[in-house]
Amino acid sequence: MNPITMLLQADPLIRMALQEDISDEDVTTNAVLPLGQRGSVELIAKQEGILAGLPVYKRVFELLDPDTQIETYAKDGDRITAGERLAKLTGDMRVLLSGERVALNFLQRMSGIATYTREIVTLLEGSKTKLLDTRKTTPNMRLFEKYSVKVGGGTNHRYNLSDGVLLKDNHIGAVGGITQAVQRAREYAPFVRKIEVETENLEMVREAVEAGADIIMLDNMTKEEMKEAVQIIGGRALTECSGNVTRDNVKELTEIGVDYISSGALTHSAPILDLSMKNLHPLEDES
Amino acid sequence: MNPITMLLQADPLIRMALQEDISDEDVTTNAVLPLGQRGSVELIAKQEGILAGLPVYKRVFELLDPDTQIETYAKDGDRITAGERLAKLTGDMRVLLSGERVALNFLQRMSGIATYTREIVTLLEGSKTKLLDTRKTTPNMRLFEKYSVKVGGGTNHRYNLSDGVLLKDNHIGAVGGITQAVQRAREYAPFVRKIEVETENLEMVREAVEAGADIIMLDNMTKEEMKEAVQIIGGRALTECSGNVTRDNVKELTEIGVDYISSGALTHSAPILDLSMKNLHPLEDES
Amino acid sequence: MNPITMLLQADPLIRMALQEDISDEDVTTNAVLPLGQRGSVELIAKQEGILAGLPVYKRVFELLDPDTQIETYAKDGDRITAGERLAKLTGDMRVLLSGERVALNFLQRMSGIATYTREIVTLLEGSKTKLLDTRKTTPNMRLFEKYSVKVGGGTNHRYNLSDGVLLKDNHIGAVGGITQAVQRAREYAPFVRKIEVETENLEMVREAVEAGADIIMLDNMTKEEMKEAVQIIGGRALTECSGNVTRDNVKELTEIGVDYISSGALTHSAPILDLSMKNLHPLEDES
Amino acid sequence: MNPITMLLQADPLIRMALQEDISDEDVTTNAVLPLGQRGSVELIAKQEGILAGLPVYKRVFELLDPDTQIETYAKDGDRITAGERLAKLTGDMRVLLSGERVALNFLQRMSGIATYTREIVTLLEGSKTKLLDTRKTTPNMRLFEKYSVKVGGGTNHRYNLSDGVLLKDNHIGAVGGITQAVQRAREYAPFVRKIEVETENLEMVREAVEAGADIIMLDNMTKEEMKEAVQIIGGRALTECSGNVTRDNVKELTEIGVDYISSGALTHSAPILDLSMKNLHPLEDES
Amino acid sequence: MNPITMLLQADPLIRMALQEDISDEDVTTNAVLPLGQRGSVELIAKQEGILAGLPVYKRVFELLDPDTQIETYAKDGDRITAGERLAKLTGDMRVLLSGERVALNFLQRMSGIATYTREIVTLLEGSKTKLLDTRKTTPNMRLFEKYSVKVGGGTNHRYNLSDGVLLKDNHIGAVGGITQAVQRAREYAPFVRKIEVETENLEMVREAVEAGADIIMLDNMTKEEMKEAVQIIGGRALTECSGNVTRDNVKELTEIGVDYISSGALTHSAPILDLSMKNLHPLEDES
Amino acid sequence: MNPITMLLQADPLIRMALQEDISDEDVTTNAVLPLGQRGSVELIAKQEGILAGLPVYKRVFELLDPDTQIETYAKDGDRITAGERLAKLTGDMRVLLSGERVALNFLQRMSGIATYTREIVTLLEGSKTKLLDTRKTTPNMRLFEKYSVKVGGGTNHRYNLSDGVLLKDNHIGAVGGITQAVQRAREYAPFVRKIEVETENLEMVREAVEAGADIIMLDNMTKEEMKEAVQIIGGRALTECSGNVTRDNVKELTEIGVDYISSGALTHSAPILDLSMKNLHPLEDES
Repeated sequence: MNPITMLLQADPLIRMALQEDISDEDVTTNAVLPLGQRGSVELIAKQEGILAGLPVYKRVFELLDPDTQIETYAKDGDRITAGERLAKLTGDMRVLLSGERVALNFLQRMSGIATYTREIVTLLEGSKTKLLDTRKTTPNMRLFEKYSVKVGGGTNHRYNLSDGVLLKDNHIGAVGGITQAVQRAREYAPFVRKIEVETENLEMVREAVEAGADIIMLDNMTKEEMKEAVQIIGGRALTECSGNVTRDNVKELTEIGVDYISSGALTHSAPILDLSMKNLHPLEDES
Repeated sequence: MNPITMLLQADPLIRMALQEDISDEDVTTNAVLPLGQRGSVELIAKQEGILAGLPVYKRVFELLDPDTQIETYAKDGDRITAGERLAKLTGDMRVLLSGERVALNFLQRMSGIATYTREIVTLLEGSKTKLLDTRKTTPNMRLFEKYSVKVGGGTNHRYNLSDGVLLKDNHIGAVGGITQAVQRAREYAPFVRKIEVETENLEMVREAVEAGADIIMLDNMTKEEMKEAVQIIGGRALTECSGNVTRDNVKELTEIGVDYISSGALTHSAPILDLSMKNLHPLEDES
Repeated sequence: MNPITMLLQADPLIRMALQEDISDEDVTTNAVLPLGQRGSVELIAKQEGILAGLPVYKRVFELLDPDTQIETYAKDGDRITAGERLAKLTGDMRVLLSGERVALNFLQRMSGIATYTREIVTLLEGSKTKLLDTRKTTPNMRLFEKYSVKVGGGTNHRYNLSDGVLLKDNHIGAVGGITQAVQRAREYAPFVRKIEVETENLEMVREAVEAGADIIMLDNMTKEEMKEAVQIIGGRALTECSGNVTRDNVKELTEIGVDYISSGALTHSAPILDLSMKNLHPLEDES
Repeated sequence: MNPITMLLQADPLIRMALQEDISDEDVTTNAVLPLGQRGSVELIAKQEGILAGLPVYKRVFELLDPDTQIETYAKDGDRITAGERLAKLTGDMRVLLSGERVALNFLQRMSGIATYTREIVTLLEGSKTKLLDTRKTTPNMRLFEKYSVKVGGGTNHRYNLSDGVLLKDNHIGAVGGITQAVQRAREYAPFVRKIEVETENLEMVREAVEAGADIIMLDNMTKEEMKEAVQIIGGRALTECSGNVTRDNVKELTEIGVDYISSGALTHSAPILDLSMKNLHPLEDES
Repeated sequence: MNPITMLLQADPLIRMALQEDISDEDVTTNAVLPLGQRGSVELIAKQEGILAGLPVYKRVFELLDPDTQIETYAKDGDRITAGERLAKLTGDMRVLLSGERVALNFLQRMSGIATYTREIVTLLEGSKTKLLDTRKTTPNMRLFEKYSVKVGGGTNHRYNLSDGVLLKDNHIGAVGGITQAVQRAREYAPFVRKIEVETENLEMVREAVEAGADIIMLDNMTKEEMKEAVQIIGGRALTECSGNVTRDNVKELTEIGVDYISSGALTHSAPILDLSMKNLHPLEDES
Repeated sequence: MNPITMLLQADPLIRMALQEDISDEDVTTNAVLPLGQRGSVELIAKQEGILAGLPVYKRVFELLDPDTQIETYAKDGDRITAGERLAKLTGDMRVLLSGERVALNFLQRMSGIATYTREIVTLLEGSKTKLLDTRKTTPNMRLFEKYSVKVGGGTNHRYNLSDGVLLKDNHIGAVGGITQAVQRAREYAPFVRKIEVETENLEMVREAVEAGADIIMLDNMTKEEMKEAVQIIGGRALTECSGNVTRDNVKELTEIGVDYISSGALTHSAPILDLSMKNLHPLEDES
């Protein structure tokens, strides 16, 4: 994750998460370690998968104490194996204990998303079709979840409602047709926005192409309809197949020849990747 | 969800989630509906499950426009069926369109957690054992996720590091033994805190009971060890079985006779419950 | 301004501006009006120009007291004349007095930008060329300033560094050429982003077209070079002429046939439009 | 700018401005420079004028990366010439690229205000009359704009409604007269506040002096009236001439003998001073 | 308290105080009253004193639930007697229970300050000397504490370091003398600031008068020295006696003829005024 | 104070307190020390008492300037004597001057609470009874005030409404009796919460014990009643005596044999401990 994004966007969310978990103090740790003690702990993978979020994991401890030393033995995007040692942390044991849960909560979820994304991306290999995420993210976690999709090899769709135009049936209905909707969007939106139109049948596809849509989403169509749609479009717009993408049908979808398929499950249903912190032990003071 | 909690704790998080999705404006909606129009839309279940988070879903739209009218046909904790109409919203169509995704992102995740929790709780029926959540929640979503566990029939463990004492091996190691750790915690912590000790073998269980622990966690023990532990404790402390609780082994765990079993999966691995907003249409102005 | 944008994005900035001007209390008003009194005041134009920001002006008073009644006699985008009455406010005189300066500071600057934008837009009439703003806005005022450009008839360029790709010479240099830079951006950026390349000579223009740039900016070229560039591009990308756009040379620029010209002066150098609040007077209590 | 003010007041506004320009990431820079690279860039003046805001400009980059090294060759208040090199920045090229626009947006506006202020102040030289700013500042920019006035040689009027008493006609009307208004203010306001009264004719001037006003503002009076007012006051109160101060009439105003003249244009109409960042280039790693 | 100050300054602090007391939920109230119930409760004085903060007390409940109805039978500044009923609140019993402690914590402290201030003010009656507060307030409570002093009949000194100039020995030492210090302050500070100089002997008093100080503080002088100081000053500056003002010596201090005496104890040592909420009982639903 | 608590919880409150005292700049200090100068100052006790809050005092200066050097000669919990030197600060004199008041406002109040607490705790020595604080704290100061009670030797009651269950008469009334209330709380609250019941007579005491309350508060009972209550309870629950604990009656209360007595006065009525900063003087530049 880019250091500027970390500082401007991620830090406030990480700090909030720490305050969520420590609303006044870590009463257990402070009872037994009133004065602190240097110690060391390791981050270990308990499952095979794709690592994502290591910079965020590190940042949790750095925000609690900038003197925490963190050596990493893997990086975001790496395939890791069960039992693999990923990092070693050295610092105030109170920091290592108090930050553990929040750091893992970020890292496990992010790695889970990257792992699931990579799995689907691998199934798409050999085809021209790329995998997109959606806005079906956990509230206040979009920054981390969209980043994890990219780490997993996916491509990001628009970040939010402000940075992309997607005309759905209700938008189209409000102005009387695809042609008018595209024209309105073209006039209103910042001129750097691509304009995407959601279509449900071949007639809508034809109208969208004619209206000059930059991207055409094929929604709830049969495989045959989608194939015909791709032919109708003929490269005049990018194509996105949206719908229930699963491990089972993704292979089949690549044959349609769409440019992109999008999947909400990447962010709303990927199981976590199991990781843990092990071997915490005090260190002799070296001073 | 209690209205005071909503106002003090949930509102700021909901508002942040809306700002995450609308960083300057919903450019699509504003292009086609510059002036707004009254409309109506329905919330429909696409899967069977337990509803949780309807007050949060409502609040998303109320925060965008207090004049949005929302009729609900179900309430948190209800078992809902695929196709069931759960609510009807009437108001400015721009609000209905711009709030949809954030509202569903909350509701689907919360209902997913409640649904999964209820499933496990049902398996525990007939036994004395209750189901607990953990701190393995999504960062900045704990308020919503712990609430959903309760809606599903589960019981909450401590909220965070500040409101409960849980002495793990590292805490115990830091002061030289369970007895000393419990004593330190008793002296240091606010006197309303129960003190829980994590134990890994029967010797530790014995020491914890003698030390006056209020709750004893049995971690990574065999079923037989746990049965013996429960007998050793003999009601002098509450017992919690922690570890890999699954649909398959939960029945078996009830035979041990522990008071509680805890499961991180409730919050970190429950799949979402599929819900959608349908039939958005403009309304004639009645004025 | 869309009511959702007002609530999510503008309200926090308006409230901050009020706190900037009232850090503990309006000591003058509170000294003479300890109990409040109903009164009325009018908003009057002192110059001819284009009105922009009336909803923001209203919001200042509504945030101070939701019971303030505001009748408006003009709307954003209207050409107003010196002496014209634009609105009448009725409410607690303390609110009318304490909110006056902040409300006018917003409205005068926004109307100034709209007025200046409209002037340039008028000069472009009859040509295909449209007027763009830039990111040269006042810190923490971009929301209001870009809106004002749109009210004045201009078109918005990207909102910020996150929602548009613009490859400048330094970006291009970092990867070794336009072709590589466009490819990298295509791979990295969310797929809804258009990709713009800044070019300084015809060779760069050719390379940008070949690389598949969506928009090509012609920077610091002579009129003749720009004409040739437009021909080279031949409709395969949108064209933007950037540089010192002034009242004097804008007419001439339209002959080049570029799609857009952009001007930082719209937001960083437009003089304010003079407006004032007049005829404040107490009202008899009607109760 | 004082380092404490920078830290407590300016930093939050600078950080907000950065978040305004980078709402999730600088997508262009991150596409071409995923790993960062050390580089160097210069700040160059493109116009003659007075520099103001260099500490704020520096702070933008320091907040993005504390390791950015910034050598400065000029300081706030200096007269700078077109082409003059003002500073050299060395650091992560991503930081130099991503911070450029925000840093310049602050510096250009602040220097523009200082330049315009200095121009008027120079015209006042030789007279006893000093130049004041007003509260007609850009919302949420007052800290920076009032500082720039001081850098330009002007004097600050009250900072906001809380730290100064200024009785205008509506305040006076509310209590029935100048005498009563001054008395009320004297009783109500913190005793360290000077009390200023706005007057529109000589009768009001006389009443204000008698009431013990500390400062008397002469509003919309003719030159002759103002001269007479100054004589009536006879040093018993400070005098401020308010109104349309321009380059053309300011010389003339000094002859009146008022202590201060105030001008809203200093902050609401000063054009920016043109500055730019040039010669960005990568550095060989010296390690 | 002025409604604008309440909204802009007090509301955020009140909301923070509520979040301090309810970090996730009022678990006791929610356990027994899951659905809410209308009820009523009274605010009763348990001691004689001066009431201050009733609008803040009300605001606590209104912020929790705008539908809470609050009838008041006294107002800020009233002398109240033990047992007196001050207000009656009707609304959701959860709101009445959850808001009680925070509301009383504000009201008791504020009334305590007003009561103690009134006591000293009464001792000053008949003299020209007025009572001032200081900056020795509780962190983040200054708004409420300075207001309470005013309710008690005291006068506010400067609000903070930004809105008043007070040259102490260290400031004077830094520039080499009182004359230089006053001159520097006159040049640097906004021209609406009065300039106060702290003096410790008669020589300093003389220098301060000559330098044109607006206010002269007599610090740690004997009664005789202070009397002589007042004569030296002869009305050319306001005089403030600072130091250990107590109930016992305040009468004596009035004979000196200073304009003001200031006391830190007003805000840092006033005991609370005891108040309580009584007779909470459910109401039959009238619907 | 634990460094994590300082960073996550205390820092934001300290920064707010600094912004409260410096809303734009320390105008006096900046007038006389525009460029800063190294200096040194000492922290001196003016009264005997218990020190509490030294880490907070230090943090005030560190937040203003991380380069401030602070040597301390005492630590929280120490008994200090009048005239004792507690710390020496070296750094930018502007920081030492501008931070002084806020730092002392924290330290004096915190030490006052610790001093008063220690006094009562000393009176309890020799008995089994421990001293508890309450939620009667200053709004937004609870973190600091509860910490000070602990430094003084007291024990903390619940931190707020979220982390402890205390069933008062109104809660009990709402569900029809102690037995039901305890059962409801047991079911609803996180299972780590101890459940406390407030009782007013012996019958209630009996019911509370039977219901399984963890803690029983004896409210407004005579000494004899309390003694009998303790016998009834017989160690089956912890006991807390609540009410008007004073220096005079506390000795007597220990004879009752309750486990805890609680006192609101610890936080709402402890007078401050007088401390001051002395001997500020500039240092020669050692460079």
